[in-house]
Amino acid sequence: MELGLVGLGKMGGNMRERIRRAGHTVVGYAHQRDVSDVHSLKELVDSLAAPRVVWLMVPAGEATQSTVDELAELLEPGDVVVDGGNSRWTDDEKHARELASKGIGFVDCGVSGGVWGLENGYALMYGGDAEHVARVQPIFDALKPEGEFGAVHAGKVGAGHFAKMVHNGIEYAMMQAFAEGWELLETVDSVTDVREVFRSWQEGTVIRSWLLDLSVRALDDDEHLEQLRGYAADSGEGRWTVEAAIDNAVPLPAITASLFARFGSRQDDSPQMKMIAALRNQFGGHAVESK
Amino acid sequence: MELGLVGLGKMGGNMRERIRRAGHTVVGYAHQRDVSDVHSLKELVDSLAAPRVVWLMVPAGEATQSTVDELAELLEPGDVVVDGGNSRWTDDEKHARELASKGIGFVDCGVSGGVWGLENGYALMYGGDAEHVARVQPIFDALKPEGEFGAVHAGKVGAGHFAKMVHNGIEYAMMQAFAEGWELLETVDSVTDVREVFRSWQEGTVIRSWLLDLSVRALDDDEHLEQLRGYAADSGEGRWTVEAAIDNAVPLPAITASLFARFGSRQDDSPQMKMIAALRNQFGGHAVESK
Amino acid sequence: MELGLVGLGKMGGNMRERIRRAGHTVVGYAHQRDVSDVHSLKELVDSLAAPRVVWLMVPAGEATQSTVDELAELLEPGDVVVDGGNSRWTDDEKHARELASKGIGFVDCGVSGGVWGLENGYALMYGGDAEHVARVQPIFDALKPEGEFGAVHAGKVGAGHFAKMVHNGIEYAMMQAFAEGWELLETVDSVTDVREVFRSWQEGTVIRSWLLDLSVRALDDDEHLEQLRGYAADSGEGRWTVEAAIDNAVPLPAITASLFARFGSRQDDSPQMKMIAALRNQFGGHAVESK
Amino acid sequence: MELGLVGLGKMGGNMRERIRRAGHTVVGYAHQRDVSDVHSLKELVDSLAAPRVVWLMVPAGEATQSTVDELAELLEPGDVVVDGGNSRWTDDEKHARELASKGIGFVDCGVSGGVWGLENGYALMYGGDAEHVARVQPIFDALKPEGEFGAVHAGKVGAGHFAKMVHNGIEYAMMQAFAEGWELLETVDSVTDVREVFRSWQEGTVIRSWLLDLSVRALDDDEHLEQLRGYAADSGEGRWTVEAAIDNAVPLPAITASLFARFGSRQDDSPQMKMIAALRNQFGGHAVESK
Repeated sequence: MELGLVGLGKMGGNMRERIRRAGHTVVGYAHQRDVSDVHSLKELVDSLAAPRVVWLMVPAGEATQSTVDELAELLEPGDVVVDGGNSRWTDDEKHARELASKGIGFVDCGVSGGVWGLENGYALMYGGDAEHVARVQPIFDALKPEGEFGAVHAGKVGAGHFAKMVHNGIEYAMMQAFAEGWELLETVDSVTDVREVFRSWQEGTVIRSWLLDLSVRALDDDEHLEQLRGYAADSGEGRWTVEAAIDNAVPLPAITASLFARFGSRQDDSPQMKMIAALRNQFGGHAVESK
Repeated sequence: MELGLVGLGKMGGNMRERIRRAGHTVVGYAHQRDVSDVHSLKELVDSLAAPRVVWLMVPAGEATQSTVDELAELLEPGDVVVDGGNSRWTDDEKHARELASKGIGFVDCGVSGGVWGLENGYALMYGGDAEHVARVQPIFDALKPEGEFGAVHAGKVGAGHFAKMVHNGIEYAMMQAFAEGWELLETVDSVTDVREVFRSWQEGTVIRSWLLDLSVRALDDDEHLEQLRGYAADSGEGRWTVEAAIDNAVPLPAITASLFARFGSRQDDSPQMKMIAALRNQFGGHAVESK
Repeated sequence: MELGLVGLGKMGGNMRERIRRAGHTVVGYAHQRDVSDVHSLKELVDSLAAPRVVWLMVPAGEATQSTVDELAELLEPGDVVVDGGNSRWTDDEKHARELASKGIGFVDCGVSGGVWGLENGYALMYGGDAEHVARVQPIFDALKPEGEFGAVHAGKVGAGHFAKMVHNGIEYAMMQAFAEGWELLETVDSVTDVREVFRSWQEGTVIRSWLLDLSVRALDDDEHLEQLRGYAADSGEGRWTVEAAIDNAVPLPAITASLFARFGSRQDDSPQMKMIAALRNQFGGHAVESK
Repeated sequence: MELGLVGLGKMGGNMRERIRRAGHTVVGYAHQRDVSDVHSLKELVDSLAAPRVVWLMVPAGEATQSTVDELAELLEPGDVVVDGGNSRWTDDEKHARELASKGIGFVDCGVSGGVWGLENGYALMYGGDAEHVARVQPIFDALKPEGEFGAVHAGKVGAGHFAKMVHNGIEYAMMQAFAEGWELLETVDSVTDVREVFRSWQEGTVIRSWLLDLSVRALDDDEHLEQLRGYAADSGEGRWTVEAAIDNAVPLPAITASLFARFGSRQDDSPQMKMIAALRNQFGGHAVESK
C-alpha cells in the first residue's frame, strides 16, 4: 500500500526503510531536503491516492499539533492520520476530535525499538476505532517484529500512547533495578568480577531480559563505566506515567524512585541536601562542607 | 563423580534428579525417610569415597549451621562442603573458617531456577578458592543451563551468595515494575485489553524478559488476577540486599520500595496510616473511618 | 473595613467570625440560606460600597471558576477579588487575567489553620500585585495569628497558593515521619509505653512540633488508635506538589512516598501486589493466598 | 548526688556543666588530660562512694564496649552504669548481661539536645529496670528541660536507645520534608521570597516546629545556602532505624528515602546513574555525557 510519512529523523528514517523493504510505497516528508521525498506536506498529500494514510513521526507537542492542524486542512474525508510519535495520551483525543470534524480518522501508535528497530522490528501499541486501525494494518505488519508478538490494538484513541508510556515507566524501573544491583556489587570487595556475574545471569535466572543483555554489552565496552558520567536525561514518558498514576491514585513507588534518581543525576549540587546540611549544623554543630 | 546432597526439598530433590541425569552419582540425605538415600549424615559421609564433596540444600540459619557443625566433625581434610542454600553472605566466611580449621574446603553457591530448574537448568553463582571450586565444577556443569551462560565464579567465599542476593534484589524491583505498570493500565478506561498489551510486549520492546513472559502466563490463567489476594511474602534476600546497601551507603530506592510494598501487602490494616488519619482529624476535623 | 465573603462552610464560617471580632463588617453569602447574610452574589455586591473586596472561600475548580465568572460581570473596575480557597496555583493566573480585563484586581491566598484557626488565627500566604494586596491588608491582619509571624506576601499571582501547596506537601511528609516512627515503636516489645515516649518528645528534642503535640492528643484519646481504620484521604495539594516537582525536575522522594502511602491506604486489596503474588507463584511455585 | 562521667567531648562536657549547675558532684574522665578530673577509670571509680553511678558518653561500638568491659572489672555489686552514648539498641542487652553477671546494674539512655542542651536541657529516653532507673533519677532531672516533658522511662533495657533511634529516624524525614519543600519553592519564579515564606510559617501553620525555626535561622545566615555544599553525613541512627524496620517488616518509605538522599549526596558521581546512561545509550543511541 501507499503511506505518507512525516518526519524522517533517526526513528522515521529507519521506519521508512523497513516499510519499503516490506514492499510498500512510502512518500516521506521532512524539513531536511536531502532526506525528503517531497517538498511540502501539500505535495505529500497530493502524491497519495485517496483514501490516504499519513503517519506522523515528529516531536510531541507543538510540532505534532501544527502538523495535525495542517493535515486537517489538506486531507479529505476517509483519510486516516497515525500519530506514531511520543505524544502525551491526552493530546490524542484532541487530535482525533479535530480530525473527525473533517471526516478524517485518527490512530495513535506508540513505537518502541530505538536503533534496533530497523533490523528487529518495532513494537507497536495502537489505539483507535477498528475501521481506522484496519486501514493501517499492512503498515503495522511491516513494522512489527517477525514473531507472533510485538503489536497490539490496545483500545480506544489514546490507548496506544498510554500503553507505550507505561512501557517506558516499567523500563525506567527495570533499568534502575539493574543499576542499583550493579552499584552494590561494584561496592563490595568479595565479588571480584561483576561483569562476569552480569554475563552469567543471561541464562537460568529470574532476571534474564533484553536490558540485562544490553548491560553486558555496555560492560564489555567499559567494564566499570569509567568513561561515563552518571547523568541521565528523561524523555517525558516517565513523568507522564507518574502523573497518570497521581490522577488515578495508583501508588508507583519504584517507577517514581527511578524518575527522581534521574532528576537528581542532573543536579550539580543538590539544593535540598544543602538544607539538610544547614539544619544539621544548626542543631548539632555538625561541620558542613563549604564550597 | 560422587556427590553427597543434604536436603531434598522442592529444590534439592529436583537438583538430585538433574545431577543424576548428567551421569553423576548422588547420595541424598534428608530427614524425610521416604526420599532419603541414607539414614544419617554419618552414613552419607561413610558412603562417599574421599576426597568428598557434600552439597547442602537446607534452610538458611540454624539448620545450615548445625549441618556445617556436624560435617566439620564427620568429614576429613581435603573434603569440600558447598552451601547451595539461601544463606546470608555473612555466614559464609564463618562457615569457611570453621571448616578450614579442620582442613575442609568451602564453597558458597547461590542457586536460581525455582520449579523450572530441573528442565532448564539452574543459574549458579559461586564463591571460594579456585581449588575448591574446581573440585565441584562437574556438578556445576551438570546443574547449569545448557547455553554458554548461567554459571559464574563470582569471587571469594561469600561472593556467590552475595551475587545471588543482589540478583533477588533486582528481581524484586523488576517484579514491582511490571506490577505497577499493570495496575496503572488496569485502572484506565481507554486501554481495553491489558493482557494483550502485556502479551504484545514480548517482542521488540525494551522490557522483554522472562518475568514479562511469566506475567503473560499468569494473566492467561486469570485475566484480572481476581482469584488472588494482593499478599506477597519475602524470602529474606530482599531484606539482606537493603541491609548490605545500608552497610555500604549505597542508595537503593527502587529495590527498597519493592521490599516495603511487600511488607505493606501483609498488613490487614496499616498502623502508620491510622496515625495519619488521627492527625488529619486532630488538625482539620477531617472525618476518620472507624472500625 | 467592609468585606464580601463567598462561602460559609467550616472554614468560611469561622473566618467570618474572626474578621468580625476584629471590628470589620462582613457580608457573607452562601447557598445555605440559614447562614447567609444575603440571597445572591448580586445582592452581596450591591451591599458593599466601591471599591469592594470580595473574598472567595469556595471549593477549588468549577465552583471557584463559576464564582469568578459571575463576579467578573458584577464587580466594577477598582474592586479586588481574593481567592482564599484551595485552588491550584495554575488557576490563579487565569483568574487574574479574566478579572484584569475588567479592571478588577486579584489576590490568591493560601489559608492554613483548620478547626484551630478561629481562636489561634490563620496562617496566610498570598500572591499578587502590591496595590491589590494592600487593599486586603486589614483583613489579612484580622485573620492572621497574633504573633509576628503567620502571614506573608509570597510573590506574584499564584505564589500564595503555591506556597500553601508546598506547606501541605511538607505536612504530608512530616505526618508520615511521625506515623512511621510510631508504627515502629509500637512493633517492638522493649518499648513498653509508646505514648509516653511521644509525650516526652515535646521538649528538648529536635522533632518537637505542633504535629507532635497533636499526635499526643490523638494517643490520649485512643492509646493504640484501635478505633481508627488506617485510611487516609488526600485533598489534592499533595498531588499538585508532586506534579509541580515533576514539572521542575525536582526530586521529592519523601513527600511522594507520603502521598503514595495514602493512595495505598485506600485500596481494599492491592492490584499490584496481586501481580507480585502471581509472579512469585509462576517462577517459584510459591503458595499464593486466594480470596 | 555523685556521678562519674566518662567522655567529655562536645556532649559530655556540656552535660557535666549542666549537672554541676544543678548542684551535683561530677567526676569526669576523658583521655584528654586538660578536661579530665581524674587520670584513669580506676581513679574515677575510686573517687566515688559506693553505690556508684557511672555515666558513659563515649562513641558507640568499640569504645563503649571496652569501657563497659573495664568497668565490669572495676565496679562493685550495687553500682549502676548508664550508657548515654549513641549505642545501637542491640548492644544494650549484651552490656546489661555482662554487668549483671557482676551484680552491676545497667541503664541505656538516648540523649537529644546537641549544642542547645546546656541551656535548654536534654531530652532523655531511658530503658532498664525501675530500681536502676531510680538510682539515676536525680541526674535525669538535672539534665532534662525544665518543663513537664523531655524525659521518659521508655521500657526495658534497650528501649531508651531504641526510642532515641526512632526519634532520629523521624528527624531525618522531617528535615527531608523541609528540604524538599524549600528546593521546590526556590525553583519556581512566582515565589519571590522563599525565606519570608519559611519565616511566616512559624505561626498558625500545621508544620510549625523547631526544625522550621532552625531553617529560618539558617536562611537568615545565608538566604540561598550558597555557601554550603549539598553534602550530608549520617550518624548511624538513621541506618539502624531502617534495619529495625526491616527486622520487623515495617515499611518506612519516607525515612528510608531520607537516608538514601544523604547517601546520594556524598557521591561525587553516581555509579548507578552511569549504568542508566549506559543502557539508554545501548538501546536508544541516546547521547551520553563522557567525563
